[in-house]
Amino acid sequence: MTQPQRSIEDLRAEVDQINRELLGLLSRRGHVVAQIGHAKTQEGRPNHYDPAREDKQLKELEGLNQGPFTGAAVKAIFKEIFKASLDLEESNDKKQLLV
Amino acid sequence: MTQPQRSIEDLRAEVDQINRELLGLLSRRGHVVAQIGHAKTQEGRPNHYDPAREDKQLKELEGLNQGPFTGAAVKAIFKEIFKASLDLEESNDKKQLLV
Repeated sequence: MTQPQRSIEDLRAEVDQINRELLGLLSRRGHVVAQIGHAKTQEGRPNHYDPAREDKQLKELEGLNQGPFTGAAVKAIFKEIFKASLDLEESNDKKQLLV
Repeated sequence: MTQPQRSIEDLRAEVDQINRELLGLLSRRGHVVAQIGHAKTQEGRPNHYDPAREDKQLKELEGLNQGPFTGAAVKAIFKEIFKASLDLEESNDKKQLLV
């Protein structure tokens, strides 16, 4: 028995809903990362870039990935998330310096 | 009253948990996008790239974004998600041609 095929409009509405959930999760992640940045600054660690920590996250995600995206695609998406997170930590640092 | 500061280790555990949730949502999105690609192929629409649809999604997300990421950062992350999704639709198409 095959499922009745859903319309493109219906499928797109689901994609839009998932986009909103992704944005919510990304924002939550951004707030946690900002706290990490703040803690690092307080500990006198001005360098926020931590390639070993990024590699660890990518390895875990590649291990958990069951598709349909390839490991390379998952990696590319998360690298963009890491980049945005690093920019966020560094811009918060500058704000603290200016206070 | 300020909240007690959480350790970097504790904050990183939360980031790891959010990463896993993001991966789960991305995979769900990938499966829905693959169905859209399949429907397009059946309708005889070989060109899966739809810049107007991508723009619509980006505009909605930029409108909903409440930070801490900038609109530009959210856009860059979602553009990477769109790229992976397009690759997925197109590679599925090739598989169908080979059957």
